[in-house]
Amino acid sequence: MRIAVDAMGGDNAPRSTVQGALAAVKENPSLTIVLVGDEQGIRSQLSGEIPANIEIVPTTEVIDPDDEPVKAVRRKKNSSLVVAVQMARENLVDAAISAGNTGALMTAGLLYAGRMEGIERPALATFIPNIKGRVTLTLDVGANMDAKPHHLLQYAVMGSLYAERVLGFEKPTVGLLNVGTEEGKGNELTKAVFPLLTDADLNFVGNVEARDVLEGACDVLVCDGFVGNVLLKAVEGAAATIFSQLKQEFTSSLINKVGAAILKPGLMRFRKRMDYAEYGGAPLLGLRSPVIKAHGSSDAKAVKNAIASAATFVKQDVNEIIQKELQKNMTGESE
Amino acid sequence: MRIAVDAMGGDNAPRSTVQGALAAVKENPSLTIVLVGDEQGIRSQLSGEIPANIEIVPTTEVIDPDDEPVKAVRRKKNSSLVVAVQMARENLVDAAISAGNTGALMTAGLLYAGRMEGIERPALATFIPNIKGRVTLTLDVGANMDAKPHHLLQYAVMGSLYAERVLGFEKPTVGLLNVGTEEGKGNELTKAVFPLLTDADLNFVGNVEARDVLEGACDVLVCDGFVGNVLLKAVEGAAATIFSQLKQEFTSSLINKVGAAILKPGLMRFRKRMDYAEYGGAPLLGLRSPVIKAHGSSDAKAVKNAIASAATFVKQDVNEIIQKELQKNMTGESE
Repeated sequence: MRIAVDAMGGDNAPRSTVQGALAAVKENPSLTIVLVGDEQGIRSQLSGEIPANIEIVPTTEVIDPDDEPVKAVRRKKNSSLVVAVQMARENLVDAAISAGNTGALMTAGLLYAGRMEGIERPALATFIPNIKGRVTLTLDVGANMDAKPHHLLQYAVMGSLYAERVLGFEKPTVGLLNVGTEEGKGNELTKAVFPLLTDADLNFVGNVEARDVLEGACDVLVCDGFVGNVLLKAVEGAAATIFSQLKQEFTSSLINKVGAAILKPGLMRFRKRMDYAEYGGAPLLGLRSPVIKAHGSSDAKAVKNAIASAATFVKQDVNEIIQKELQKNMTGESE
Repeated sequence: MRIAVDAMGGDNAPRSTVQGALAAVKENPSLTIVLVGDEQGIRSQLSGEIPANIEIVPTTEVIDPDDEPVKAVRRKKNSSLVVAVQMARENLVDAAISAGNTGALMTAGLLYAGRMEGIERPALATFIPNIKGRVTLTLDVGANMDAKPHHLLQYAVMGSLYAERVLGFEKPTVGLLNVGTEEGKGNELTKAVFPLLTDADLNFVGNVEARDVLEGACDVLVCDGFVGNVLLKAVEGAAATIFSQLKQEFTSSLINKVGAAILKPGLMRFRKRMDYAEYGGAPLLGLRSPVIKAHGSSDAKAVKNAIASAATFVKQDVNEIIQKELQKNMTGESE
């Protein structure tokens, strides 16, 4: 199996991507990783001999985190991100991974990898860690801003299969993000989606409120891309603000530093429990070729795990299973 | 000025409501507070003589936090919440306050207080505390699930005036909750709202992402009721989960308890900074009579501050100013 990695994507690239690729092929020697990016930068991280199952495809451009996605993808055709996705489309590799600009990866996925048959709107999934020590696969978090009811049904089917086949969750529970738990709650969209999810072949547990997501109310959370994006950024923002404020308090005096030092192992345990790096990358679901988004702050371990996710995605034929399940669930449904 | 307080609403009622009313009339002797609720329960909190500017209106029913709002308001006509709002409608009082069931208060407000002229959809506002030590007045957080662009413009005008006249913010900044900061981002709704807010007589600062709300990116945040509800619950849920997990770690051993004891003053300072009780209650904007929702966990101080908010709401003629500003801003706009 061959997987392309955008070697230039992410805050710690190319160190994290190259080191992650090395760790991945060591763990799974049947893999070949194609590192796409600045050749010199990649080689400088590959001290010594290059393993036989690491290849380099040199590119000259890089899409920055702040680049406007659509423009960047159209203009920077020789960027590491675009070339990695194009290689997947041309079947030169089985999957593509990037820890770079999320919008650009989604755009490149739509433009170059293309949509699966029957999928009008691919979805960007993400992991929200929960206190059960698992993650909630949440989709869509920003690919499709104005979703229709059957789009959300497709998200549910795709997310459920991904959670089962790639994350290894048995009969994953599926929840609908809503403003109350009772049936009949919500806006026009969620009211229309609820019966579709009830009738589908899913382990649907009903509406889930935003406050219960971190408690682990469901394995797969379905919502439109606008709401999902707000949810994700609200949770990330609240966590970041609280921790930065606590850090400020904990270092504000010598005695506080002593207290903080005592509590450090507990704080680290908590952070580790909420760390989703071990779940690998988040998939763009509904594309013809598996495309995985690794977190922008991925370290080598996170990249290695994203590669492992991509390998399972391919090995388990998740796209083919999704296609079959969609045909079963979507009979009679169309725009 | 006369203000009705639902004496039975909130987790700590009637102690918090009665004590809050007593503190309010002590601070502002020109106020008369009408405590609506179970007479015996109220009297048991009023030890000794009842001040001349505290009145009691006895009711026999209570709307519980878990009651289905519409049913509860229609069936429990002699509940403290419904009677308090009805008194406002009948001009027996100038404003009504409740720390009880939010949905029921909104329903009672719509049903009994009625909408202001020109307002199709009243909005429920709330305070989200931010690290600047202020609050972000966020609306709508759940009154109107499927909002149209001109509804959001009305929220912006009403919220901005409330922030200026009642919260005392000078030229409050207004932000539009969105998935990116650039113009042109978002769903159909936010794309249509952006130019309306740009053209209105507001201190509009553009799109605001959910992650920047706690950083205090704007004073007034505008969104549809579905998204606002998700944002609010996501922030509250993330904070509650993080603090409960930290508490678990901090009490997991004797040495951790020592560390936590050292840090306690800092933790309390942080909690106090994020405490919005001093900002009083959150308004239901767009109703004919001022109706204020105090937080369910309000203590006496929070109730006192909610009463002070209501008094300022009335004294500053906020509703009349809103009416004038709407006519100015909404010319040519209608459904």
